[in-house]
Amino acid sequence: MLTDLFSPSVQHSLDIAGIFVFAMSGALLGVRKNFDVFGMAVLAEVTALGGGLFRDLIIGAVPPAAFTDLGYFLTPLVATAIVFFLHPEVERITKAVNVFDAAGLGLFCVAGTVKAYGHGLGLTFAATLGLATAVGGGVLRDVLAHEVPSLLRWDRDLYAVPAMVGSTMAALLIRYDALNVSTSMLSAAVAFVLRLLAMRYHWRAPRAWHRRSATAGDPAQGNAQG
Amino acid sequence: MLTDLFSPSVQHSLDIAGIFVFAMSGALLGVRKNFDVFGMAVLAEVTALGGGLFRDLIIGAVPPAAFTDLGYFLTPLVATAIVFFLHPEVERITKAVNVFDAAGLGLFCVAGTVKAYGHGLGLTFAATLGLATAVGGGVLRDVLAHEVPSLLRWDRDLYAVPAMVGSTMAALLIRYDALNVSTSMLSAAVAFVLRLLAMRYHWRAPRAWHRRSATAGDPAQGNAQG
Amino acid sequence: MLTDLFSPSVQHSLDIAGIFVFAMSGALLGVRKNFDVFGMAVLAEVTALGGGLFRDLIIGAVPPAAFTDLGYFLTPLVATAIVFFLHPEVERITKAVNVFDAAGLGLFCVAGTVKAYGHGLGLTFAATLGLATAVGGGVLRDVLAHEVPSLLRWDRDLYAVPAMVGSTMAALLIRYDALNVSTSMLSAAVAFVLRLLAMRYHWRAPRAWHRRSATAGDPAQGNAQG
Repeated sequence: MLTDLFSPSVQHSLDIAGIFVFAMSGALLGVRKNFDVFGMAVLAEVTALGGGLFRDLIIGAVPPAAFTDLGYFLTPLVATAIVFFLHPEVERITKAVNVFDAAGLGLFCVAGTVKAYGHGLGLTFAATLGLATAVGGGVLRDVLAHEVPSLLRWDRDLYAVPAMVGSTMAALLIRYDALNVSTSMLSAAVAFVLRLLAMRYHWRAPRAWHRRSATAGDPAQGNAQG
Repeated sequence: MLTDLFSPSVQHSLDIAGIFVFAMSGALLGVRKNFDVFGMAVLAEVTALGGGLFRDLIIGAVPPAAFTDLGYFLTPLVATAIVFFLHPEVERITKAVNVFDAAGLGLFCVAGTVKAYGHGLGLTFAATLGLATAVGGGVLRDVLAHEVPSLLRWDRDLYAVPAMVGSTMAALLIRYDALNVSTSMLSAAVAFVLRLLAMRYHWRAPRAWHRRSATAGDPAQGNAQG
Repeated sequence: MLTDLFSPSVQHSLDIAGIFVFAMSGALLGVRKNFDVFGMAVLAEVTALGGGLFRDLIIGAVPPAAFTDLGYFLTPLVATAIVFFLHPEVERITKAVNVFDAAGLGLFCVAGTVKAYGHGLGLTFAATLGLATAVGGGVLRDVLAHEVPSLLRWDRDLYAVPAMVGSTMAALLIRYDALNVSTSMLSAAVAFVLRLLAMRYHWRAPRAWHRRSATAGDPAQGNAQG
């Protein structure tokens, strides 16, 4: 079975690692938004588990993994405690956190695609749901924290495209019956490296053509270069 | 069976048409919010498919139609591409887009009611879920785009009430065993025309009585006329 | 069976009471946000039924109770009508509304824990889902009304902690096979009293240590006292 690609303990360790780094980004946003320790914990849980929760509801895998695996549930609380006591130190290593977040992105887009396919979705939808698994937690985090989702903003480095590449690679590997431990790790690595390059060189996606003409009266236009 | 009212191909064409016009409104909001092309695509997908996704999760129809039908998934991407390349032209025909959106509203409130009833919900709940199918995508769109949902604002023309009339008509037709192609199209048409009239004559719903007395200290009160 | 703790009619009356007070808080926020009567009704429904809806989707109890019980659905509409016609009077008794809301919090955290356990979740997850049942509606209300969720804000009196204590008590009682009508009402009462005390003495949760050092450049820091 596809989800048996890895030995259970290896798979679980990879999941926990991804959950941990996503939870760090949630707890840090909680600090920046001036939330209390409980708000930090909620953002950490939502960021780390929200994408997988959405995927499990869509494929009908209830109760979702987030509500059956204690490790999944407790890891974000550990991340919250670390940020709570050490956040100046954590902020100082934001770059490191971003690298871990990129690793989580790579792992989740591949794992999400494989799990969705294993529950009977077509390949296009499995890849889409893999993408949603990887980016969904961050969108929920931003909505709860009352921010414009950074996924949607044009002035942020590419985030969804690397995940899209990774989940598409995983779907193609399934299609050609070539998915194994090495190739799935390769897909995750490609997404990871693409995200690192996007951050390093500030790759961005284009906005609609001829924006200016249509939004002359739009105050948000002020600092846009069309 | 109720969902066999129309021949599958007719039903599918109507669904695709509704999805397309809703997706246009999502992609256009993405342009106005200065999102990149990927953010536009996310808003288009969410606006077009969000209401039906919510309905399918509630009635337990997983995986939802949005994740099993390629046409449903690809149509919003086509709408995104059109808006991306041609949005000044699309903006110029905003009125036409609003007419299409009203048509989508009418089709979705009836289709949602019929599908919910077919999955065993009572008539009141089927009508409620039909309403949610029609307006849910727009609410999700506004939440993700970090706007006050226009569904809730008093200074917008009636949107939910036409959908409510359409889904109630559909529920009554089911109750009296009179639902067929003609009567269900009539329900959709009534919702469609009511929405057009609401836009033409700026029909609005009332706010709470005696608002002023209770909100004297409310800064949002400034431009309200109580 | 656990969910048969109370006679059905007693259980149902308690549920309706909790739904009613939560709906009042939703409709009142609708008035403050200047929404029309339909927006008030949406906020009332979402606040009262959102937490339970989330719980039912997670445990796979579809269609959720909110879509099968007419009393659950109609109660928020009654609350909306009361607020619509009488809101200056309702505002004047805000303190009373807060007391009712605290009662709803106590009832929902215990009822949610018991229902989640009855559907096969582990005790930790049952307690977490009980907490989510109690606070989830308020979070959805704030997100839809375009506010920072008051659950997450450090400058609000403790809300989640009382619910957490109540649901943890219920989980421990299940664990030691001591859950009955008296002990479950006791759990709800403890959560209720803790919430009242939190409001009376303005108990708050701490924010991250050394906040200032890390957020010197953060404009949101202006009115924070680190």
